[in-house]
Amino acid sequence: MLHAIIPAGGAGSRLWPLSRKGHPKFLHDLTGAGRTLLQATVDRLKPLTESIVVVTGQSHTAAVAEQLPQLPQENVLAEPSPRDSMAAIGLAAAILLRRHPDQDVIVGSFAADHVITDQAAFADAVTAAVEVARGGYVVTIGIQPTGPSTAFGYIETGAPIATGGTITPLHVAAFTEKPDADLAAEYLATGRYRWNAGMFVARASVLLDHLRDQQPELATGLAAIADAWDTDERGAVLDERWPELTKIPIDHAIAEPVAAAGGVAVVPATFGWDDVGDWASLRGLLETAAGTERTAGGSTVLGELGHALAVDASDSLIVPRAGRKVVVLGIPDAVVVDTPDALLVTTVEHAQRVKDIVTELSAESGDLT
Amino acid sequence: MLHAIIPAGGAGSRLWPLSRKGHPKFLHDLTGAGRTLLQATVDRLKPLTESIVVVTGQSHTAAVAEQLPQLPQENVLAEPSPRDSMAAIGLAAAILLRRHPDQDVIVGSFAADHVITDQAAFADAVTAAVEVARGGYVVTIGIQPTGPSTAFGYIETGAPIATGGTITPLHVAAFTEKPDADLAAEYLATGRYRWNAGMFVARASVLLDHLRDQQPELATGLAAIADAWDTDERGAVLDERWPELTKIPIDHAIAEPVAAAGGVAVVPATFGWDDVGDWASLRGLLETAAGTERTAGGSTVLGELGHALAVDASDSLIVPRAGRKVVVLGIPDAVVVDTPDALLVTTVEHAQRVKDIVTELSAESGDLT
Repeated sequence: MLHAIIPAGGAGSRLWPLSRKGHPKFLHDLTGAGRTLLQATVDRLKPLTESIVVVTGQSHTAAVAEQLPQLPQENVLAEPSPRDSMAAIGLAAAILLRRHPDQDVIVGSFAADHVITDQAAFADAVTAAVEVARGGYVVTIGIQPTGPSTAFGYIETGAPIATGGTITPLHVAAFTEKPDADLAAEYLATGRYRWNAGMFVARASVLLDHLRDQQPELATGLAAIADAWDTDERGAVLDERWPELTKIPIDHAIAEPVAAAGGVAVVPATFGWDDVGDWASLRGLLETAAGTERTAGGSTVLGELGHALAVDASDSLIVPRAGRKVVVLGIPDAVVVDTPDALLVTTVEHAQRVKDIVTELSAESGDLT
Repeated sequence: MLHAIIPAGGAGSRLWPLSRKGHPKFLHDLTGAGRTLLQATVDRLKPLTESIVVVTGQSHTAAVAEQLPQLPQENVLAEPSPRDSMAAIGLAAAILLRRHPDQDVIVGSFAADHVITDQAAFADAVTAAVEVARGGYVVTIGIQPTGPSTAFGYIETGAPIATGGTITPLHVAAFTEKPDADLAAEYLATGRYRWNAGMFVARASVLLDHLRDQQPELATGLAAIADAWDTDERGAVLDERWPELTKIPIDHAIAEPVAAAGGVAVVPATFGWDDVGDWASLRGLLETAAGTERTAGGSTVLGELGHALAVDASDSLIVPRAGRKVVVLGIPDAVVVDTPDALLVTTVEHAQRVKDIVTELSAESGDLT
């Protein structure tokens, strides 16, 4: 059976002013579905897993526990400080191995702040990934691109791997960074590229063996911490070892080098996926979502419809979260995000630059980031 | 000596959401000068007049009295309901005649919500207007146009009137409505047109004689009310006569017909004048004002500079009045007006249409207009 690891870090600063350091993206309901991104991630994984572990910053553990009341307290792992995704996932894998000494533990890591549509297709992909992982592969799930996005990394697929399943996995030839528009179009034309959704499934022992090979110091540190985790020594060992852990994402630490050596497989999947990277991405997601409310003027409202009035502001995104009336007049593609202490007014064209605003604001007194 | 009449009506709905029915434009400091438009109007007139009378709606008398603590209480005339400018000015003129039976009362009416720069030039023009008014003319002040504005009415000037003064008044040939851009350009090319700032100076008796000729019913009604005003009968007479008063602006009631008969003069003036009709007009005014604060991005802030951050939003107008941080990214010419219960996001191009928004909102429950 699969154990899910949900690294819940990342401030989502491009979704400021809704997403804040103190209350980041994954704690928000960004789709109006009545569940936060974290809750939706857990809802999705629950039927597919034996247990779920959330790895998050110390300051977010209370909010995580509140949003996930059914999650056992010991399954919320608090990081003293951010050490990137390899430390988070490696620590959880190591702890799960120790907690289930009699199992051949399979772990799957899934971001806390992505949006997925089509639960059945997701379940099929995860089930297939688990099967392939049993064979010793690190398995990722490759999303069928719906266009030449420049916002995502891509997976270059290689030769198929023979299995008995209905979904045929492929070797991963390489992982690539976010391409420019021309390169993205080239990728799509080859038919060999898929979006990298950052999902990784593997036997915990395989994952930790790779870690030992690729990042021996990090592996040693995590092993010491995992040994102490469920003991009285946790605090002392964390104090000593955590600050020195190598900060590296799992992509660089394991996925890329192991793919180069032929050890990574990709399960092709067709479910709807988005990392909701910025307001433009969220607008696109909400525009195509079935249940999204729209104003008469054709804009999308994330919040109370009665709090928004859009006139000649087609395809705008209005997020009224301060209980006030928000009127947008004559600005198509506007993005207006209204919170009690900060207001963002921009357009989808500038969505990526919201991060720069956050950088600028964080230097100010009365920090609103 | 001159007695000033300040009709303080008009909601200024194009300046929503700052200007509201319950707290209209004239009660606001729209220039950041530390004085409201009404206060600045009084400041400007005080050195030029023997007394000042403000005519306003019953619901605004308390705010007017609070903003003008030195104005005698009896000089705030409360209208039971709006009856347009002729009733307001005519009533004040009739009351002033009765209060000063031994004087040849000269009255001058000046809007409560306009912005004027260059007090000395204004004083010269008013003084000249008073001199011409003594000769029996209804006198208006004609502003030298700084461009072919389509936002103002124009005064077509005629033959000069010989006086001994340094400013030579002219006959008014006609008053015109707001022109389109082509017509405005034609007006300017002739050199004979001036902006109509809605200022009228006349002997009270002359004004009321014209009213009797042009609008006899209105004149009779106002005379009855003025007779009762400073007696115990005021309430009873107002109840009876006020609702039936003809609603007509002074322009149609007196200025246009009397001009056609050769009875209106214009004093040419060069002071800076603006009726601050909408946010675009206010932006223009603030951009050229000496003391206006600007953000790094070249936008104008009416309010606390620290509450605004503009990036790639040149020539924007930000009005942060809710104590929150307002961030505008990538929208030049943006207009963002932030109040505690309502937010307007638009551009100067659409400034005139804010009135339509107010109309739409006033039909909603929880009226914010």
